[in-house]
Amino acid sequence: MKNITELFHIKYPIVQGGMIWCSGWELASAVSNAGGLGLIGAGSMHPETLKEHIRKCKTATSKPFGVNVPLLYPQTDEIMEIIVREGVKIVFTSAGNPKKYTIFLKEKGITVVHVVANKKFALKAQEAGVDAIVAEGFEAGGHNGFEETTTLVLLQALRNVVQIPIIAAGGIGSGAAIFAAMALGAAGVQIGSLFAASQESSAHEAFKHKIVDAGEGETYLSLKQLVPVRLLHNPFFEKVHQAEQSGASKEELAELLGKGRAKKGMFEGDVDGGELEIGQVAGLIDEIKPVRQIIAGLIAGFNETARRMDGFLL
Amino acid sequence: MKNITELFHIKYPIVQGGMIWCSGWELASAVSNAGGLGLIGAGSMHPETLKEHIRKCKTATSKPFGVNVPLLYPQTDEIMEIIVREGVKIVFTSAGNPKKYTIFLKEKGITVVHVVANKKFALKAQEAGVDAIVAEGFEAGGHNGFEETTTLVLLQALRNVVQIPIIAAGGIGSGAAIFAAMALGAAGVQIGSLFAASQESSAHEAFKHKIVDAGEGETYLSLKQLVPVRLLHNPFFEKVHQAEQSGASKEELAELLGKGRAKKGMFEGDVDGGELEIGQVAGLIDEIKPVRQIIAGLIAGFNETARRMDGFLL
Repeated sequence: MKNITELFHIKYPIVQGGMIWCSGWELASAVSNAGGLGLIGAGSMHPETLKEHIRKCKTATSKPFGVNVPLLYPQTDEIMEIIVREGVKIVFTSAGNPKKYTIFLKEKGITVVHVVANKKFALKAQEAGVDAIVAEGFEAGGHNGFEETTTLVLLQALRNVVQIPIIAAGGIGSGAAIFAAMALGAAGVQIGSLFAASQESSAHEAFKHKIVDAGEGETYLSLKQLVPVRLLHNPFFEKVHQAEQSGASKEELAELLGKGRAKKGMFEGDVDGGELEIGQVAGLIDEIKPVRQIIAGLIAGFNETARRMDGFLL
Repeated sequence: MKNITELFHIKYPIVQGGMIWCSGWELASAVSNAGGLGLIGAGSMHPETLKEHIRKCKTATSKPFGVNVPLLYPQTDEIMEIIVREGVKIVFTSAGNPKKYTIFLKEKGITVVHVVANKKFALKAQEAGVDAIVAEGFEAGGHNGFEETTTLVLLQALRNVVQIPIIAAGGIGSGAAIFAAMALGAAGVQIGSLFAASQESSAHEAFKHKIVDAGEGETYLSLKQLVPVRLLHNPFFEKVHQAEQSGASKEELAELLGKGRAKKGMFEGDVDGGELEIGQVAGLIDEIKPVRQIIAGLIAGFNETARRMDGFLL
């Protein structure tokens, strides 16, 4: 098994997903200090803000950390220049074609990982020369694939097809799930929701409490005509859902969504009118905990599972 | 771990899902003879047909087998009487409230398992006195839950909440997936799609070939306004999808679906005009194999995974 601990020089095969409005330097450095790989989510940052977060993260941890860059913003060139200039060593790209930036970043000696939701893009990313892929299933929060393939099925589909390490994402809410993902061939996991609700997350407290309160079945993949995105149930979601059920067009949905809707909900705490991106594991979260405690719990759960399964043959 | 091999007196913790139009006595007896638990799917059978299948199954295998009964048909009382009279020892119920029939069947000494897609119904089934539950995730074929919870998340949600054995279903397409499900606390798995496409399945050959040809992302959860059902992409699905996108009402969808649509597609081989129920693992199936070979492959995959994960601690 190609283990991502060697690839990233980290202790545990746990990556904290780069999430808009949740993962600034505080969260990323806390995860890295606890032995995982912290990622600053550049998706919600102006280039100058990102620079500040990278600098603060370097001060807060001596461990490796990275930056996640969704490749759909006009400022991507500028973002990449900052990443290189500030000496970031690991970049996760998502939501776009990895070709152009993979070559650029690899030339600078940066480790590159691309996020995919299907086999087709997994192979494209591999061809583009990335060092690893994140395979993200239907249960993941935020933007998601059109195929709706779940993490369990996606990992089975990619195994023996992709040669580079696969980092499983979507639905990872316990140490047992990390063990299961690695049994399915993953070389590690990326976790979003658990960290979005952590003490060090930059999400608004009101959003964190909504995550803690969420029961099962309270997130839905929405806005499939635009880009599918998994949202927590709230009055804004209800509006979208009703519009979709009555046959709203792409344009009408885009207008309903408007601008800055995620910031409003996740960062400013308007949990009724904002867009709240979170994964299905929200239903498993019942406490806002510090990162160190979350990771310690995951490791204990992993090892308990490993011991329980030890020597179990059919 | 409460293992279902003891509960059902079988060799391997593998149940073949009771599927309409696919799982008659030939499939069920083949699975039981290969060491799993075969289930006759009563959902697509008239009571007299079921009686015939039970009798043929008893002739074809000396091993335990069961019957799956969806609790939504008017003839359920009659079906249950036949099951008792014919001496069936194991019944899986689905799609309804397990209370009434669990008491009835348990009084006759029959082992009862109920299929659920969420925590709420898992607890209700446990309260009703069933011996085990099948926890079926979003990726499963055919009828599905409204919550869209994936198998990975559902297993994590049920663990430590349900005391009876959990049989994981949905997305199980390899021995590694069985191992992963058991790592997540399942006491066994239920597999549908792999067996729907087996040689012994009573599905029409044309449907089996459609399953083999299916790539990733070619099944979708549809008809959510009626009862969500995972279908294979075909012209009939396309019609449903377009109707849904243009805001069709429940009544319009019910009319479009009509009667006998699943039989038409899955049993009579009208793969364009019929309803083709199959899980996401359809994308992993590339050959129509005999049951014995499918199960041997699963066991080999399980043991290979167990050996690879052996002694792996964080």
